Amino acid sequence: MQNYISKEKIKVSQSSTGDDIYIDKITVKGSDDFAPSVYLQASMHASELQGNAVLVELLEYFNQHQPNGDIYIIPQCNPIGMDMFIGAGHQGRFDSATGDNWNRYYFNPKINYESFVKEHINSSTLVYKKAFEELLQQEIAKELSNKWELSRAKRLNMLVQQEAQKADFVLDLHTDTDAITYLYTPEYAKEDAEKFGYKHTLVVGNAFGGALDEAICVPWWSLQLEFKKQGRDENVLKECFTLELGSEECVSKDDAIMQTQGVLNYLKHKKVINSVFATDRLHSEVIHHDLADYKHVKAVEGGLYEWFVKAGDSFEAGDLIGQYIQTSSMTRKDLTLPYKGTIISISMKGAVCQGSALMNLATTNN
Amino acid sequence: MQNYISKEKIKVSQSSTGDDIYIDKITVKGSDDFAPSVYLQASMHASELQGNAVLVELLEYFNQHQPNGDIYIIPQCNPIGMDMFIGAGHQGRFDSATGDNWNRYYFNPKINYESFVKEHINSSTLVYKKAFEELLQQEIAKELSNKWELSRAKRLNMLVQQEAQKADFVLDLHTDTDAITYLYTPEYAKEDAEKFGYKHTLVVGNAFGGALDEAICVPWWSLQLEFKKQGRDENVLKECFTLELGSEECVSKDDAIMQTQGVLNYLKHKKVINSVFATDRLHSEVIHHDLADYKHVKAVEGGLYEWFVKAGDSFEAGDLIGQYIQTSSMTRKDLTLPYKGTIISISMKGAVCQGSALMNLATTNN
Amino acid sequence: MQNYISKEKIKVSQSSTGDDIYIDKITVKGSDDFAPSVYLQASMHASELQGNAVLVELLEYFNQHQPNGDIYIIPQCNPIGMDMFIGAGHQGRFDSATGDNWNRYYFNPKINYESFVKEHINSSTLVYKKAFEELLQQEIAKELSNKWELSRAKRLNMLVQQEAQKADFVLDLHTDTDAITYLYTPEYAKEDAEKFGYKHTLVVGNAFGGALDEAICVPWWSLQLEFKKQGRDENVLKECFTLELGSEECVSKDDAIMQTQGVLNYLKHKKVINSVFATDRLHSEVIHHDLADYKHVKAVEGGLYEWFVKAGDSFEAGDLIGQYIQTSSMTRKDLTLPYKGTIISISMKGAVCQGSALMNLATTNN
Amino acid sequence: MQNYISKEKIKVSQSSTGDDIYIDKITVKGSDDFAPSVYLQASMHASELQGNAVLVELLEYFNQHQPNGDIYIIPQCNPIGMDMFIGAGHQGRFDSATGDNWNRYYFNPKINYESFVKEHINSSTLVYKKAFEELLQQEIAKELSNKWELSRAKRLNMLVQQEAQKADFVLDLHTDTDAITYLYTPEYAKEDAEKFGYKHTLVVGNAFGGALDEAICVPWWSLQLEFKKQGRDENVLKECFTLELGSEECVSKDDAIMQTQGVLNYLKHKKVINSVFATDRLHSEVIHHDLADYKHVKAVEGGLYEWFVKAGDSFEAGDLIGQYIQTSSMTRKDLTLPYKGTIISISMKGAVCQGSALMNLATTNN
Repeated sequence: MQNYISKEKIKVSQSSTGDDIYIDKITVKGSDDFAPSVYLQASMHASELQGNAVLVELLEYFNQHQPNGDIYIIPQCNPIGMDMFIGAGHQGRFDSATGDNWNRYYFNPKINYESFVKEHINSSTLVYKKAFEELLQQEIAKELSNKWELSRAKRLNMLVQQEAQKADFVLDLHTDTDAITYLYTPEYAKEDAEKFGYKHTLVVGNAFGGALDEAICVPWWSLQLEFKKQGRDENVLKECFTLELGSEECVSKDDAIMQTQGVLNYLKHKKVINSVFATDRLHSEVIHHDLADYKHVKAVEGGLYEWFVKAGDSFEAGDLIGQYIQTSSMTRKDLTLPYKGTIISISMKGAVCQGSALMNLATTNN
Repeated sequence: MQNYISKEKIKVSQSSTGDDIYIDKITVKGSDDFAPSVYLQASMHASELQGNAVLVELLEYFNQHQPNGDIYIIPQCNPIGMDMFIGAGHQGRFDSATGDNWNRYYFNPKINYESFVKEHINSSTLVYKKAFEELLQQEIAKELSNKWELSRAKRLNMLVQQEAQKADFVLDLHTDTDAITYLYTPEYAKEDAEKFGYKHTLVVGNAFGGALDEAICVPWWSLQLEFKKQGRDENVLKECFTLELGSEECVSKDDAIMQTQGVLNYLKHKKVINSVFATDRLHSEVIHHDLADYKHVKAVEGGLYEWFVKAGDSFEAGDLIGQYIQTSSMTRKDLTLPYKGTIISISMKGAVCQGSALMNLATTNN
Repeated sequence: MQNYISKEKIKVSQSSTGDDIYIDKITVKGSDDFAPSVYLQASMHASELQGNAVLVELLEYFNQHQPNGDIYIIPQCNPIGMDMFIGAGHQGRFDSATGDNWNRYYFNPKINYESFVKEHINSSTLVYKKAFEELLQQEIAKELSNKWELSRAKRLNMLVQQEAQKADFVLDLHTDTDAITYLYTPEYAKEDAEKFGYKHTLVVGNAFGGALDEAICVPWWSLQLEFKKQGRDENVLKECFTLELGSEECVSKDDAIMQTQGVLNYLKHKKVINSVFATDRLHSEVIHHDLADYKHVKAVEGGLYEWFVKAGDSFEAGDLIGQYIQTSSMTRKDLTLPYKGTIISISMKGAVCQGSALMNLATTNN
Repeated sequence: MQNYISKEKIKVSQSSTGDDIYIDKITVKGSDDFAPSVYLQASMHASELQGNAVLVELLEYFNQHQPNGDIYIIPQCNPIGMDMFIGAGHQGRFDSATGDNWNRYYFNPKINYESFVKEHINSSTLVYKKAFEELLQQEIAKELSNKWELSRAKRLNMLVQQEAQKADFVLDLHTDTDAITYLYTPEYAKEDAEKFGYKHTLVVGNAFGGALDEAICVPWWSLQLEFKKQGRDENVLKECFTLELGSEECVSKDDAIMQTQGVLNYLKHKKVINSVFATDRLHSEVIHHDLADYKHVKAVEGGLYEWFVKAGDSFEAGDLIGQYIQTSSMTRKDLTLPYKGTIISISMKGAVCQGSALMNLATTNN
């Protein structure tokens, strides 16, 4: 590795033996101190692995092409959920001890936006940006100091959030169940999101539900809205995207090549890099789906399910998209849905109970 | 059983075989059609069993003493989580497939309280009560009809909520981990809560977090507040309490006798019954704790923990309350907390990771 | 359904509510009382579903073509493990409470073969067959009567074994992880096993490890060997095959058509049926693998694994068959094995620890 | 710590990140090179913690009193199962990924005892002991070299067995579920076992089932029997005991004091130590139970169980020892057993299915 690439360890937890638990943080020092920086992490949902395949590609690229801006990478950011295998399954989405979703305990501080903007209404963008960054770091440090009330999910989430908050752009690498490559974008960053060249996006509003993309975007978005309210037009100064890189528990070098092209294309657009790379695998037409049209379809009947469709397919309401066997009557039944749309991910096959997740569907009305 | 006691089955789910899954509902018909009715359920958190010990006591009592009002009982209301054993543990709090907390998917309908109260500002209490009950049943029926988007936890929760909504008073029987007997009471019902004679209560505000007590109380409490806003003083017409009947995965006839005395005492106060029973096991002085003072203490260090205190004990900040071994250094360390208060429940012993739950503590300041 | 097809329920367990737990047994009455009978069961490993797809096909066929001999079918024979979902995984192979493999508690009675054969050395085959069948049923009934020492896996296994022992031929329908269709055959039944037309078989000896095929075959095989020892040549009178019908948690009608052809072809060979059916999907050349050459390959290093091969593929020692990422060094490594052979099943992909199962391999030496 | 106490790390596994996984091995160097040595390990069943409380006591003692012989200690010997929490339970007995019991994959080599003894029939005890030790180390090294077929349980077991085989006496520290302190002793070491002063022992024969005590004792016992067969009387030269130190997921300093007295008393008897210590907590009368009389009692009916007895209690056949509620009928039933004996451990309380483990019982006939 080039000498502008270094690695450090960050303590994030402690086992019942008293041994500390660490994550690796890799820093690729950029050549230009004034270029924007990027933070990437993978596998907070510990069974979502493909982000690491992309990060290996990126590191190889950065080893040959020093970026302008700093790149911060935490490849495997969940050492607790990492090898949590229970029988046939890798328990990666939840803390198996508590049921805590590893991606829902990021921190959204209570900030008095009105008074902050009042104070900075005439500050330069650089000045208020720096002040707001400091405020966010203070708030998270304060929350972390409340140590007797931190679950391990919350501590882990906030410790990586501290790292993420140091960068201008943040990419949180996830996957879905059995899925296409797509991404979540805040409404204000839709155009930038298209630079990734992934065919589908889900567009989210300024609401906080505990995920990293929200924890990064919501404060800066709220700040921009407050500036607007007080009569000054500003851009939202930070962006965070959750990239959904295909299917969980899968690693594909071929997919990683396409997905990495998208990340590089975004970084180039943001002037974090200016070296060359291929873009032949990217989609030029990107379809944005509103989150309100995104349905989490559950099974209305139990059965042994077989699918006739796969992630990425579109269908009409009433189309025959699968069938299922009910052994209680030894019959086979057709599966149709009252919706039309594009399948973003298939959640389950085989044995399915009433109420089990079937698919995530970007519905369309026309 | 007396002929005023009957049983029916309610379909709540379906297995992957296509077989329907049912729960039992027992009805004890009261002698007075105008007396208020009560709904009791147990074991929605499937490893919380003691409620059934209380329900067996109650049924024996009602078999000898017909109540005035109707009593509706669902003894084991979670047939899905019921026998979900994973190694040493009974996975009762969460849907093991999804991580859904079985007690967080009750339904709080979006209601236009302002317009409802405007319409009923001059209605009699009986009339608006009936109208509001019907509205609530319509709203939950509408939500249940959205069948392709119902997880099994949500369907199960709403199906028992439909039953609970038919009664005037609702008791949701739970337990804590390794705990004393206590209960959650809405602020407005603190005095009634004392009738149970359990030594400690946790007092909650008018907020909805998905539990049954909230789903029952919040709409009626919001209605009362809106009446007040529009100038009419009304009581909150319904009450729901979550009773925490000691420790999970335990059954104790002796504790059930005390706990049943409390339930009967509440029912008598509410005129649901007027027969005699003993009250010698009840506390006359009940301590109310504000939820804001209720701390969920987590481990700051990992270790093998031994406790010197138990649920119900009080301690001062800095008291030696336990010790733990760290095998990484083969040392034993003292455990003290920076809080003072009364232990409501001990969450874990033995192997504890950093961030694992240690205890729930009703803190005190003076 | 035709009136020669009937269904009954068999109690196999009891839940913690006291409710009994049943399985369905379907009987297709044959037209010829002297024709041999067959018993089929599916899904004892509860995430192994494809057997039910085959049983649905068979029932449709028998509904149109009455068999000669009786057919006994238990479609879903594990109501305990059936819907045991833990996060991403269906816990079907093991009793999640105890770790008991649901397919290892069948019963092999201690029989004095020497004295039985001495007694029947001059009996007709029909006579000693009947006597031995009675002995086996007595032995299992005795074992079941020892009720305070029966785990639920053992009780469940023995209750279906009682049913299986009533038939002449027994088919236990399983699947592997991510696998081809193949079967286990006792050495003595290799020729009959070829009638299924599945490309690969695993040939097992006269040893008991707790599975149903062994529990059925071992006593009759041991009996035949003892007859031989005492100077009389007899056939082994019973056969049981474990059919491995592809991948777990999958249902495929297309595969079921092929697999059902194989079952029908075997039944015809055994004169259980004589009606017509297609055989176009069957293999005429079947490859037998000795169990001694069947390797359960484990990972020598941890990593995020991607395969370049799939079940059914063959490779040479040293061939590049996959690669894995180690995030500790952010490197990608090649996977080669020191074996040559045919992949029967791939066990895992994605996150793999040292020692995790990689594949089951029918090795070859030449 | 004194300078005769040192610590090293042993690699036992590797995670999916490629990071190696280690255990600590502590060596207390004895003052006499010719004194016998002892190996102790704890927590192979990862939820069995009390052994570490004893090891902390022992280390404190050895820090003050240097032993004669070497002491080897692996305090927490299962870093994989260590913090495997699944909801309410600590999954310590089984590899959660595979169902492998962490205490059943020790290695019993195939040895030609007849030829070894023939060769050494005239060797001194010291000489044949050394030769046999070398043979055992060669055999386990050979098995470990077969690296593509080692599950992580098997690798872990054999790596600690390599360490255990270096000592003369081996203590494997376990616990039971909710249990008294007792131990497993090989028949030939019954008298030595009494030195521990634990009230009850279970006496086992010369059979191998995969546990460490068997893996240590069986080869040396078999050797002694073969010597006898060839006409020479020898002692069994090694001893291994499984100590069951009370209840799982518990740590008790008070119990550790008693249990440590027992270990020291055994070590003194074996001349590993000769310093002073208290023995006031030890039992002078020890009751040996034959393994054939040790019953693993399972539930005959499902229910919510409450016990009237505890570990250590004795009862007669037909005594009322508990009761259970069946919610299917809302009735309470009495629990009696057709056995008499002493309860070694209670396995479950609360929700119990038919076939669930109830208790382990040392039965008596008179």
